[in-house]
Amino acid sequence: MAERATLREVGPRDGIQMAKRFLETERKLEWALRLKAAGVKEIELTSFVPPKVVPQFADADQLAQGLPRLEGVVASALIPNLKGAERALAAGFTHVNYVLSISEAHSQSNVRRSTDEAIAEFERIAALKDTEQGRGMVLGVGLATAFGCTLQGYVAPERVWQVARHVAAGGADELIVADTVGYANPAQVKMLLPPIIEIAAGRRVICHFHDTRGLGLANVAAALETGIRVFDSSLAGLGGCPFAPGATGNINTEDTAYMLESMGFSTGIDIEALLNLRRDVENWLGDERYSGAIARAGLPKTFEAAE
Amino acid sequence: MAERATLREVGPRDGIQMAKRFLETERKLEWALRLKAAGVKEIELTSFVPPKVVPQFADADQLAQGLPRLEGVVASALIPNLKGAERALAAGFTHVNYVLSISEAHSQSNVRRSTDEAIAEFERIAALKDTEQGRGMVLGVGLATAFGCTLQGYVAPERVWQVARHVAAGGADELIVADTVGYANPAQVKMLLPPIIEIAAGRRVICHFHDTRGLGLANVAAALETGIRVFDSSLAGLGGCPFAPGATGNINTEDTAYMLESMGFSTGIDIEALLNLRRDVENWLGDERYSGAIARAGLPKTFEAAE
Repeated sequence: MAERATLREVGPRDGIQMAKRFLETERKLEWALRLKAAGVKEIELTSFVPPKVVPQFADADQLAQGLPRLEGVVASALIPNLKGAERALAAGFTHVNYVLSISEAHSQSNVRRSTDEAIAEFERIAALKDTEQGRGMVLGVGLATAFGCTLQGYVAPERVWQVARHVAAGGADELIVADTVGYANPAQVKMLLPPIIEIAAGRRVICHFHDTRGLGLANVAAALETGIRVFDSSLAGLGGCPFAPGATGNINTEDTAYMLESMGFSTGIDIEALLNLRRDVENWLGDERYSGAIARAGLPKTFEAAE
Repeated sequence: MAERATLREVGPRDGIQMAKRFLETERKLEWALRLKAAGVKEIELTSFVPPKVVPQFADADQLAQGLPRLEGVVASALIPNLKGAERALAAGFTHVNYVLSISEAHSQSNVRRSTDEAIAEFERIAALKDTEQGRGMVLGVGLATAFGCTLQGYVAPERVWQVARHVAAGGADELIVADTVGYANPAQVKMLLPPIIEIAAGRRVICHFHDTRGLGLANVAAALETGIRVFDSSLAGLGGCPFAPGATGNINTEDTAYMLESMGFSTGIDIEALLNLRRDVENWLGDERYSGAIARAGLPKTFEAAE
């Protein structure tokens, strides 16, 4: 039997946070339902950032009403702060993802807080677990700009590990190591991740790579060697970061699924179904940047899904 | 001191064999001279296929008159057969590359010969080494469709190794393992290459990857782990194969150099100089498919060349 690998689809969140067009709530839900039908097991569905910051997610509460139809899928929401966590829990999410930037410059630019202030907010969020409201909450913590920052430049691995230790001790259930701006390379991946996996001590470690400088899939292959088996990716490579100039998208879900399956890792994903979905998402969203080699070249004649 | 890795630039050959516009001989030479100035140490400069097959290389003999100006660079020529080898030697080339397809279907489609007939032609070419004319000839042999074929589908690794053994024993000085149609994945790279390196017994083994399905750089990273240190690549990702449908280009030189340098391998290449050259090549060639992440996103703020 093939070893399993998991793709967390972030298209409906990371993928469209900067999209020009507001995507209707029913479309967002259809997107998620069709991801589920295509075998995707985890979806970051929306964000509880204030609508005045990202209007695209003004319908987060309404969208959450579709959660029962997504049974069998781990549907999570991004939360920017304690208030967002409370909103997400009230709306029915159990899985939430909180992101803090290791780079001080990125943290200030992204959320107008220092990294330490963002860590303090994490502690307030983690404290929700001890309340009636937060019982059973699964808290993922994203370590953004872990491989470098377009604003600050170098980000010290020691600082990444220090923050990872702090949040792991403080109630993070999952660690998401993010190359927010596409600076990572395979050698760096193999250097940075093993200590994080050790720090995580059995908690899931998820990699979130961007393909900004073309190394996204090379970094996935490197992370696989360190033992990572969960990756964030986005249908059609949609997405980026509004505060990371030149950040041109998450790694592409179809291409990543193709690579993983080719390498013998079973993702459970039907790539052809993703390609069909992608065509509809392109129609819904209109003028955005869509990437992807499999959408252009097709699967190899020799392709067989891992089983 | 950083370990060295070498890029063999195939843009002036593989990159333009299907280009719509004939590139003037002076432009081709300028391209090569500027590659040299940018630190590129090896260039596949032209091809001695008959001009009626590929008109782009009708000026191979004239271009060879520029070889003295390329001193310090290993400039090679593609040769389709014995006659091409004789022409290349007469024109002043010492390094020639002969390509045979492991896939029977690709071999028939590409050169209207079976793989065994192509091997027999290799033997006739290798025999030139024992002649006055062929003294000192360095013969690279490309094993095309080594990872699969768009026409035939599966290509048996055992056949790749068998042909590799045969040509290594028969006078090949270098083995070029080619993913002609972009079917390779990192796991396959790590499986196929080690026996070839063993068969090569000290001869150089060069990887020739295409990025058709987005795995080009992931495959480079995998090949690095097997010990490969020489890669074919093409400025702006130009190129493909006329008989490999959907083959959308060689791996991109700028992006590959960026990845190698980031990982601590010194290529000697000035990436900014390549980006300048690329802009001119785009003007010279006009409407072609140009790819590349670094050309779009720029080098990271943290980038330092390996030394």
